[in-house]
Amino acid sequence: MKHLDEVVLVPDLAGTAVFAIEGANAAVHAGLDLLGVLVLSSIVALGGGMIRDLLIGALPPSAVRDWRYPALAFISGLFAFLFHTQVATLSPLLLTTLDAAGLALFAVAGAQKALDFRINPFIATLMGTVTGCGGGLVRDVLLVRVPMVLVTDIYASAALLGAAVVVVGKRLGCPPVVTAVIGGGACFALRIAAVRFGWQLPKIKMA
Amino acid sequence: MKHLDEVVLVPDLAGTAVFAIEGANAAVHAGLDLLGVLVLSSIVALGGGMIRDLLIGALPPSAVRDWRYPALAFISGLFAFLFHTQVATLSPLLLTTLDAAGLALFAVAGAQKALDFRINPFIATLMGTVTGCGGGLVRDVLLVRVPMVLVTDIYASAALLGAAVVVVGKRLGCPPVVTAVIGGGACFALRIAAVRFGWQLPKIKMA
Amino acid sequence: MKHLDEVVLVPDLAGTAVFAIEGANAAVHAGLDLLGVLVLSSIVALGGGMIRDLLIGALPPSAVRDWRYPALAFISGLFAFLFHTQVATLSPLLLTTLDAAGLALFAVAGAQKALDFRINPFIATLMGTVTGCGGGLVRDVLLVRVPMVLVTDIYASAALLGAAVVVVGKRLGCPPVVTAVIGGGACFALRIAAVRFGWQLPKIKMA
Repeated sequence: MKHLDEVVLVPDLAGTAVFAIEGANAAVHAGLDLLGVLVLSSIVALGGGMIRDLLIGALPPSAVRDWRYPALAFISGLFAFLFHTQVATLSPLLLTTLDAAGLALFAVAGAQKALDFRINPFIATLMGTVTGCGGGLVRDVLLVRVPMVLVTDIYASAALLGAAVVVVGKRLGCPPVVTAVIGGGACFALRIAAVRFGWQLPKIKMA
Repeated sequence: MKHLDEVVLVPDLAGTAVFAIEGANAAVHAGLDLLGVLVLSSIVALGGGMIRDLLIGALPPSAVRDWRYPALAFISGLFAFLFHTQVATLSPLLLTTLDAAGLALFAVAGAQKALDFRINPFIATLMGTVTGCGGGLVRDVLLVRVPMVLVTDIYASAALLGAAVVVVGKRLGCPPVVTAVIGGGACFALRIAAVRFGWQLPKIKMA
Repeated sequence: MKHLDEVVLVPDLAGTAVFAIEGANAAVHAGLDLLGVLVLSSIVALGGGMIRDLLIGALPPSAVRDWRYPALAFISGLFAFLFHTQVATLSPLLLTTLDAAGLALFAVAGAQKALDFRINPFIATLMGTVTGCGGGLVRDVLLVRVPMVLVTDIYASAALLGAAVVVVGKRLGCPPVVTAVIGGGACFALRIAAVRFGWQLPKIKMA
């Protein structure tokens, strides 16, 4: 069990730092004050995992049980607030790459944790997707805009793919670390390719 | 207990299909992509029940424990996406009738489930209302508009009536199936009458 | 334990009444109907505590387990609806003072309850803040505006201070009633001083 925990813990903490910086960046652009920046960092970084933990009944959620999660989110958010000038000069490509990495880490860790809690494989795949996309969705709700994940190019679909690899890999008896690497890689690659080549999901054109 | 479970399961699944189609319809009109449509279907169909289950401590929620709920929501949402042209030609009257049926099914199933979890009768009535209205409320939040249920003609009030019949019926020792039918009928009739005759709840007119 | 319960119960109920009246007031101004007013009263009054209870795993939340919470929120909301003319004539200063009192009561009660549930001290401080600010945040989301707490003068920071006093006081072995009074007083004083003197948290000015 200890081994499995760490399969979840390391990507979860890495994703937390990346998403917290993104959240802080969005908050600074939206004109929030220091506390608003820290709240938004925490929500983007921890929101997806908290929703997953509530839904799979893992209470209190990791982010409440383990002080390292909120502490890391705060420190990352404070860092992005203090060095906002430098963060603003980062290339969009780098930010997209980091975001794709965070998405991959969370999707994989979320699906793995749901499986550890004996959640049905189909739903464990959805829980991985929720872990990856939940924080950004709540961010957009708080900033009063239609959640990006619902309208944008392939984003949640990439998380779905990464989570599905973890779930199918477990069925096939692969070691968790292997499926985590393959699943995370697939999610990351699909997300980056979608941005690079402008792939979109079908949409209905209303007359 | 098996009998009681089915009293909840059948209306819950029927309401799920109806609300998922409505959610997909709203998502198509809001210009969301295929994944956004499936997410919104699921949220409208499953959101109210998930909020109820979180609040009464029935974890994981039915929609996470039982893969039939999300599978049904996805299939219904996909159906409405593929046949959006046909769905768009449905008469408003038919849509209102189906929605009132879904509301009645959820209000009754929600109150019954809260009672099964030994929730106080007053609060079980509120939980039935939350089950009926929660999904639509989250839909409106995601589409960035003031939740219809807070401003519109008699909607949550109809759910409240249906849930109250179930709760009072249990107090009087009526069989659950009987109170479910009467409660659902009362909710449906009040909702349809409110739309037909333009009934409204009182509002304060600000000068 | 009974004593500790009451340390939480009394300020929790007092804060509930104050916040319900505020919620009703906001709902009347936003043009909601009677049911919308009661829903918003309940959310402002009970939302913060419900989020806290979900996150610390105290299920079902107090507001679901104990009918006095929603009943008090409804009665306070109904009162503010019926006497909206009188409520509208209350001075802004009085409303700010009552709100600061509600914030102080909730922050202190929330931190104390989290400690009672053996939550880590750092996170118990955050839970006190969530209890104080959560209801208002959900209110703003439902009324489709950026949550005041994220952009305004010192508000959540005052709740953070009050909660921190309770948590540190417990570490130092002070009796709960004493730390509750000091923590609540500190939160109240900081909030009132921030409004009076126009104190703000730092914000990044975007070019």
